[in-house]
Amino acid sequence: MSSSGLRAKGKSNLNASITVALDAMGGDFAPEMVVAGADLARTRYPKVKYILFGDRGRIEPLLEKRKALLPLVSIHHTDEAVHNDTKPGVALRSGRQSSMRLAIDAVAAGQADCVVSAGNTGALMAMAKIVLKTLPGIHRPAIASFIPTAIGESVMLDLGANIECDADNLFQFAVMGAIFARTVLGIPEPSIGLLNVGAEQVKGNDAVRAAAELLRSNPIPGRFHGFVEGNDIPAGAVDVVVTDGFTGNIALKLAEGMGKLYSGFLQKTFRASIMARLGYLLARGAFVKLRERVDPRRYNGGMFLGLSGVCVKSHGGIDAFGFANAIGVAVDMVVQGFNERISEELQRLAQTAQMPGTQVPVAELQQ
Amino acid sequence: MSSSGLRAKGKSNLNASITVALDAMGGDFAPEMVVAGADLARTRYPKVKYILFGDRGRIEPLLEKRKALLPLVSIHHTDEAVHNDTKPGVALRSGRQSSMRLAIDAVAAGQADCVVSAGNTGALMAMAKIVLKTLPGIHRPAIASFIPTAIGESVMLDLGANIECDADNLFQFAVMGAIFARTVLGIPEPSIGLLNVGAEQVKGNDAVRAAAELLRSNPIPGRFHGFVEGNDIPAGAVDVVVTDGFTGNIALKLAEGMGKLYSGFLQKTFRASIMARLGYLLARGAFVKLRERVDPRRYNGGMFLGLSGVCVKSHGGIDAFGFANAIGVAVDMVVQGFNERISEELQRLAQTAQMPGTQVPVAELQQ
Repeated sequence: MSSSGLRAKGKSNLNASITVALDAMGGDFAPEMVVAGADLARTRYPKVKYILFGDRGRIEPLLEKRKALLPLVSIHHTDEAVHNDTKPGVALRSGRQSSMRLAIDAVAAGQADCVVSAGNTGALMAMAKIVLKTLPGIHRPAIASFIPTAIGESVMLDLGANIECDADNLFQFAVMGAIFARTVLGIPEPSIGLLNVGAEQVKGNDAVRAAAELLRSNPIPGRFHGFVEGNDIPAGAVDVVVTDGFTGNIALKLAEGMGKLYSGFLQKTFRASIMARLGYLLARGAFVKLRERVDPRRYNGGMFLGLSGVCVKSHGGIDAFGFANAIGVAVDMVVQGFNERISEELQRLAQTAQMPGTQVPVAELQQ
Repeated sequence: MSSSGLRAKGKSNLNASITVALDAMGGDFAPEMVVAGADLARTRYPKVKYILFGDRGRIEPLLEKRKALLPLVSIHHTDEAVHNDTKPGVALRSGRQSSMRLAIDAVAAGQADCVVSAGNTGALMAMAKIVLKTLPGIHRPAIASFIPTAIGESVMLDLGANIECDADNLFQFAVMGAIFARTVLGIPEPSIGLLNVGAEQVKGNDAVRAAAELLRSNPIPGRFHGFVEGNDIPAGAVDVVVTDGFTGNIALKLAEGMGKLYSGFLQKTFRASIMARLGYLLARGAFVKLRERVDPRRYNGGMFLGLSGVCVKSHGGIDAFGFANAIGVAVDMVVQGFNERISEELQRLAQTAQMPGTQVPVAELQQ
């Protein structure tokens, strides 16, 4: 796989020297996939350095074959790793020497600028919250991801960090999502939609109605579009889709599942007859482009927003190409100063907003 | 469009004489679509009779062209109709002479066996609840629909009747959904999944965890599979997907939107080059079959479950083919004695269950 298909929204010509902490043992195909992913990301970000946390005995032989990556990498050895089925609480207590935890620690200690892991999501979020802490003024971090649409791609959050959300949480997700769309996707005035069961103001539960009111009455970054429905997501009606973690998690996985369903239907259809097989041979070039367009690896990366540090979760079953995209998003968030923009925006909101929730003391924001 | 593509799960050779009340004025293309839909349904259910509620001056000319339908139809004239943007409360108070309300009244009065409308969903549910009442023992009616999967189709509920649901509601939805799958889809032992953010027992909110406990500890119809995630829906992991009306509404519309997204991608891909166009010509036969397989009109029909009367809501923007499918589902529910099966099942559960919610007095159930 060439690097040409990598997402490339950010500036590739970095001035600053960035270091990425990688959980080399996280993911179904780690550490091979992690090392190969870093090598692929190198072709887009030639100056970025990596610290690989994990089993040196397994990582070193992988690096020997990758001469161009070698000078950019250092290894921090540990025998321990967080398993996929480890409960977040257990991982917190007994995983202090795990590759995942040490990678997060490196960001907190300033040795790395961001961390990327394809390991256990719950454990990663629990550790990241404890170690990196939430940004001053942010009540709850959220997980955001890209989602393909008819006209490009949107950002959706929360995707599972917060099963129950109040209006204040949803409002803050909207602010964070808009700043993400602005800084990482480069959309100057992103449109924000609150996911609901109908477009009318009376629809939905108390939380979404109150959040809509907050979004209408406060000077947010971007433009509040109003409520959006399920079908508005793939239509690309808004740049940022805001919802609670329960609905968002189900919606994201459903969208991925529908993609798989249609890919399967397509394969079956092209194999249905000899004529159909011949048809595929003719249309193949166009379908290769379609496959690239909807390739879930392009949309890989669950961004943890609202933490004092950049942390990106890759899908567990991903390959090097998808992992390189997750690295790319993390680097873009650092380069574009995503967290600094969040803090600035919260400070501005705290000074002008009518919303009690965002009125954090300015001193706290300037920490 | 021939009738050959109509859904045909139920028995087409009816012994009983069934009468369907049709809201002739509901839907974007009413009354033309309603009359044409009844005529199409006639080819599958030749003995079914229809009462058309609506504007006689508009309906009669449509019937003149349909000689075979004419003897099966009577018209109940009314000038009034519920508009799409009428609030349910307003429709209840001032829509007593509307085509929608009179069609529901006909079921309550025993003049018709079921009602089908493509009008305003909120108004239809509000009127149906007031006029038909909920089945004894059922706390809240739910809206169910078919959803295409990799291996066939599933039933999902609730799709918007209940924005907030407790464990008891979800439990009852599971029972109703399972009986629907058994009686209308003909699946003897349907599998039931509770939609959640993960498969583990600790995942989700209080309501889904408590509902899972109820489903594990009570002798339900069908088999409780456990929690399912968003991607399990299109995979066809279970026959019945149970969720609250907020999540279900968003999931259904998202699934429909993803279908549209992929259809659009496919069209664009086949038009991308001359080679691709030629490829389509060769593969056309196979793609016609795929289009039929995923045709949303095949999955048309929001079944209102839990009411003392059969009421089916058709999509508002549907054509005659889709409307005929909604009629078919309503007829199947009558023929298969769906509501009688629900009542029997509730009575059985009330006698054996550990669940306080279903312990309705047997006297009430035998009303």
